[in-house]
Amino acid sequence: MPALDLSLSSVELTRIICDIPSVSGDEKTLADAIFAQVSALEHLDVYRDGDTIVARTRLGRAQRVVIAGHIDTVPINGNVPTKDIDVDGEAYVWGRGTVDMKAGVAVQLKLAAELSDPRVDITWMWYDHEEVDADLNGLTRLARTRPDLFAGDFAILGEPSDGAVEGGCNGNLRAIVRTHGVRAHSARAWIGENAIHKAAPILERLAAYEPRDVAVEGLVYREGLNAVRINGGVAGNVIPDLCEVEVNYRFAPSRDVAEAESHVRDVLAGFEVEVVDAAAGARPGLDAPLAQEFLAAVGAEPRPKYGWTDVARFSALGVPAVNYGPGDPHLAHHDEERVPVAQIEAVEQGLRAWLASS
Amino acid sequence: MPALDLSLSSVELTRIICDIPSVSGDEKTLADAIFAQVSALEHLDVYRDGDTIVARTRLGRAQRVVIAGHIDTVPINGNVPTKDIDVDGEAYVWGRGTVDMKAGVAVQLKLAAELSDPRVDITWMWYDHEEVDADLNGLTRLARTRPDLFAGDFAILGEPSDGAVEGGCNGNLRAIVRTHGVRAHSARAWIGENAIHKAAPILERLAAYEPRDVAVEGLVYREGLNAVRINGGVAGNVIPDLCEVEVNYRFAPSRDVAEAESHVRDVLAGFEVEVVDAAAGARPGLDAPLAQEFLAAVGAEPRPKYGWTDVARFSALGVPAVNYGPGDPHLAHHDEERVPVAQIEAVEQGLRAWLASS
Repeated sequence: MPALDLSLSSVELTRIICDIPSVSGDEKTLADAIFAQVSALEHLDVYRDGDTIVARTRLGRAQRVVIAGHIDTVPINGNVPTKDIDVDGEAYVWGRGTVDMKAGVAVQLKLAAELSDPRVDITWMWYDHEEVDADLNGLTRLARTRPDLFAGDFAILGEPSDGAVEGGCNGNLRAIVRTHGVRAHSARAWIGENAIHKAAPILERLAAYEPRDVAVEGLVYREGLNAVRINGGVAGNVIPDLCEVEVNYRFAPSRDVAEAESHVRDVLAGFEVEVVDAAAGARPGLDAPLAQEFLAAVGAEPRPKYGWTDVARFSALGVPAVNYGPGDPHLAHHDEERVPVAQIEAVEQGLRAWLASS
Repeated sequence: MPALDLSLSSVELTRIICDIPSVSGDEKTLADAIFAQVSALEHLDVYRDGDTIVARTRLGRAQRVVIAGHIDTVPINGNVPTKDIDVDGEAYVWGRGTVDMKAGVAVQLKLAAELSDPRVDITWMWYDHEEVDADLNGLTRLARTRPDLFAGDFAILGEPSDGAVEGGCNGNLRAIVRTHGVRAHSARAWIGENAIHKAAPILERLAAYEPRDVAVEGLVYREGLNAVRINGGVAGNVIPDLCEVEVNYRFAPSRDVAEAESHVRDVLAGFEVEVVDAAAGARPGLDAPLAQEFLAAVGAEPRPKYGWTDVARFSALGVPAVNYGPGDPHLAHHDEERVPVAQIEAVEQGLRAWLASS
């Protein structure tokens, strides 16, 4: 394994850190390597909690920016070690983690080492367990033990955004909708009540549902309300007494969790609805002055983020946050996960242009 | 364990054979006991195949009646050994198998021993594995190895019919109805196609379906078309690409399997339908002269049988067949399974009145 030498290019660093497997729960080797490198940098104060590492400049600047990236990946599927490949004349780094999100982490590591005198103070965060239960997420732990480390005027998550700036994110709510019936032998169905048949209007309403497009601070968020699972039945000769439809509502950040729940209950009025999970979205926060400067410096068009990401965590703490990273999010978790070399370089240059200028 | 003495009353015999556990697959002890008793009877020719026993008179009568009962039960659930109980002033034998169908078998064993000179020749059959896959059923095996033993002018299955005569049975068809879609992350639902939403019209049609009541040879069969299981979905954040609805059609014996399948395909036109299991019903066969004499002798009102039973096997071989046995079929497989003592005696007397008279 090549050493994690932070003077290498961000493309070379991408390959090196992708070739250190770090599937969620198994981040220690990579975290150790990162910790060793950044601890050696005199311009940073370094703090470690498990496999989450925080490195801060202490320049007394008027403003502080948090720049964060998770170091874990979803499971490897024959796509490590990485390869340099060419698709339609464009150079890519191929392999697990290249998109989600080690190319972003590589750029952050390189700039953390290089920018000893940035125009704002910077808090770098590299964290574990992003790809699994939110309870395990390194930032969840850190917010409990060291909430002070989240202080900042603006935050950038290096999640893949195809080199664009993706602002905010949709909220996410899951609910179970249940119908009840009475069991009976299916040879005498009239004695029972069929819970699956009773679920017909639930599916009808979901099929007919027209999701909203909602403009928030200039970005248009597409919503969605979908059945993601359905389950009912006891045996091939029994009238079922229970049917459960799991629905997933993705809602624009202009709507809070209570409003989202109320909307789902309205759509499915007359049915038993149990909300099992809900997370607020994040407003794009692009009207903040620092955000405007950032957009101008990186020269990227802002777009809405649809999926929920950790930007919502910062947004909830009152810190405007965006996603800005190399890689097409559609290729995240994909067996053919690959990131364009030019995008890694563009994001590195974009961040440097903003952070280094004074 | 008391000896299986066939001179005891059919109520006493019911308790004795219920107290010999014989859950499907574990019938040997009971089959051995039955075989030992009937082999000792000079007026019967006895044949055994595994745990299925056939005992025949050879009197050269003009007509032959087959009288059959299965000796296995569904699993015991704390309801063996049997008890004598009293419910609202009526005496019952309580315990697993009392209804389905050892009281019927007890009556058959008693009469097999007693009726050495019946007015018709009789083929008694006691068989294994009725409560499980049809492939394992003792009669399936016997029909393959000794089809000649099924010869007869009329057949009586001792399945519980509450002491009434239940003619024929409905047919039974199971099919899987599938919808297909395209997976996508639920944060970008518009990229996918939701297979669960596409199943809405399937449930609508089943919920709106009005089953027929069909008169066949004077008995009215109620049909039914029901979803018995539904399953779809991949994960809480994935638009599902498959939904499967299992439907169960119970159809009057005037309709054959091909017609039943065609009907299900008509109702669910436009959807992928795969028939996974189908068994024809059985016409009641009560217009046969022997059936008319039987009804007159036992003095019971004929009713339609809704559930599929082994009468369909005889019907398919051209032998009119009915169910006639003690016990309420709604209590079959029930933890409080129990048979009225008076019904055991009434069925014994009914069969004796018909078979002994000359």
